[in-house]
Amino acid sequence: MPEIHGRRRDALRAHLREHDVDALLVVDLLNIRYLTGFTGSNAALLVHAEDERRTVFCTDGRYLTQSERQVPDLERLIERQSTIAVAALAGERGVARTGYESQHVTVEQLDELASAAGAKVELVRTPGRVERLRLIKDDTEVEALRMACAAADRALAGLIDHGGLAPGRTEREVARDLENRMLDHGAAGPSFESIVATGANSAVPHHRPTDAMLRPGDLVKLDFGALVDGYHSDMTRTVVLGEPAGWQRELYDLVAAAQAAGRAALRVGTATSEVDAAARKVIEDAGHGEHFLHGLGHGVGLEIHEAPSLAKTGQGRIAAGMAVTVEPGVYLSGKGGVRIEDTLVVRDDDPELLTLTTKQLIVV
Amino acid sequence: MPEIHGRRRDALRAHLREHDVDALLVVDLLNIRYLTGFTGSNAALLVHAEDERRTVFCTDGRYLTQSERQVPDLERLIERQSTIAVAALAGERGVARTGYESQHVTVEQLDELASAAGAKVELVRTPGRVERLRLIKDDTEVEALRMACAAADRALAGLIDHGGLAPGRTEREVARDLENRMLDHGAAGPSFESIVATGANSAVPHHRPTDAMLRPGDLVKLDFGALVDGYHSDMTRTVVLGEPAGWQRELYDLVAAAQAAGRAALRVGTATSEVDAAARKVIEDAGHGEHFLHGLGHGVGLEIHEAPSLAKTGQGRIAAGMAVTVEPGVYLSGKGGVRIEDTLVVRDDDPELLTLTTKQLIVV
Repeated sequence: MPEIHGRRRDALRAHLREHDVDALLVVDLLNIRYLTGFTGSNAALLVHAEDERRTVFCTDGRYLTQSERQVPDLERLIERQSTIAVAALAGERGVARTGYESQHVTVEQLDELASAAGAKVELVRTPGRVERLRLIKDDTEVEALRMACAAADRALAGLIDHGGLAPGRTEREVARDLENRMLDHGAAGPSFESIVATGANSAVPHHRPTDAMLRPGDLVKLDFGALVDGYHSDMTRTVVLGEPAGWQRELYDLVAAAQAAGRAALRVGTATSEVDAAARKVIEDAGHGEHFLHGLGHGVGLEIHEAPSLAKTGQGRIAAGMAVTVEPGVYLSGKGGVRIEDTLVVRDDDPELLTLTTKQLIVV
Repeated sequence: MPEIHGRRRDALRAHLREHDVDALLVVDLLNIRYLTGFTGSNAALLVHAEDERRTVFCTDGRYLTQSERQVPDLERLIERQSTIAVAALAGERGVARTGYESQHVTVEQLDELASAAGAKVELVRTPGRVERLRLIKDDTEVEALRMACAAADRALAGLIDHGGLAPGRTEREVARDLENRMLDHGAAGPSFESIVATGANSAVPHHRPTDAMLRPGDLVKLDFGALVDGYHSDMTRTVVLGEPAGWQRELYDLVAAAQAAGRAALRVGTATSEVDAAARKVIEDAGHGEHFLHGLGHGVGLEIHEAPSLAKTGQGRIAAGMAVTVEPGVYLSGKGGVRIEDTLVVRDDDPELLTLTTKQLIVV
């Protein structure tokens, strides 16, 4: 779908003119994918601020055929050192003020770019332009996120229905089962290393699956996601194996209430730090503030963690079209923990929930 | 095994003193893993040039427990903005000349580091120090590579033995089968997106598996690897479904001869570009130079592609303990291609082959 990439480049060009640069040298592969659809592992892109026909895409010989198919709408250059080649081209073609992604270009790389571009090109720090566009998801992106979240929902439902959370299975087995089920439902892969944490392990926020066995009475925390068309889903559910103990039910209800408060605060114009605060207050009021060890959530898209950050230190305000997670947790060391996480898209009214698995306590 | 990480830090300290800096601020997560064993997704490390006891490791609250276990031997700091926190610490503790990884630190990040460290700290460009150590694998690393290669060997053997390459299966099914078999043999995951390319697709060097079906008479190129303890294996085999046609056999024999020449050139002291040239000459002499579209190989370790590069433009010389791939290929567009790739460790005499699957043409 070259149209959507063309539209994104149009939007970028408007930003560039505001920023008073003649072109932007894009080096980040995800930004290049966003702007062109190219999915290979080596590329550079020079987006001309005025003229789409002067925009140049570069990759190496391994991607000759693939780039022809994925980027039919731009001038193509085939060079192994793609970034340097594109900088040199900016010099040859007299692109006087060339912006570069200073949040991705390293100190060493900048020297190489300057030397390739030559003295007539002024390299201008232009950080975060494409990321600013990526902050607000277009329909194509939301559709990919929706499919990624659906793959995760279906995988979890299948896992539970087929006895995949039976006592005696190991965390590792469960993680693999879940990941295979996501593939069955159209995922290209898991969107990050799945977390399956049983019993006391559930109190470790980022636990890696081990050979520990699920036991009756355990809380089991599952944090996982699917990758579809380059977009990541992210969901956590905490289930209990058998009748929940009083403290487990209490902990679960507390986190569920905090999560609902976080979702309710996800309104256009709200400061991101206030969304965090809304959920955090529920947990603090219950005396568990010190057991909520991380931020409330994060943006999700071509990266599993991207802007905005919903945290105490979060910057900026919520806008329509942002895709974020809301994932409070309370972790009682040595005992167990609960985290509940959804992926949502901010809308003008209520946010759209993309992860549809129930948030009632699942008793397996 | 904290000892091995301590030894690596000792080696780094010697380099730092040569480079005349008081400490190195390490920001790259793989370099941090190499130096400490930490496997989380947020960390920074300040390695003091003189005194191990003044080395400080930083991560955030999510990794409190994990870092306690993985990095018991260093002073730990828990801060969300780990890199900035460590730069600030360099300032507070009066580390006058602080080297930083200028090949990883971005232009924007350098400003943040300088402002956190304060005016009394001189930030010194110190690129590639840890990578220089990583170039030569120690025994622990070779053992991990060996296990990763063994998982891939066993997966391919199992795939073939169980009819996994039968005509009618799709590239995607084969890729998934192969990946599941690597997990069965101890891999934490595939070391990169597996390539399964059948028929004319085998002529695309970096083909992504599709729903294309394997057909009798096809060349099938399988390029895949396993991830074990953070280390990547990388192997390509090209098999033929049924009796090979004359041109298939000829192409295979040519690439096999080039690959053998590349392996034979892998000798301590040889220029990396000469290793490439040794294999390339075989293919050029057969008139297929233009159909060998990429470099001969690359280093492999904590990254799937790392130094050294065995290519026309490769720098430096082969040294004992380097782990590299040797992977010539000839690609006949629209018809089919052959690539044969091993992972090897350079030794004082013959290189040690880690991928042990036969290089005789496998007829399925």
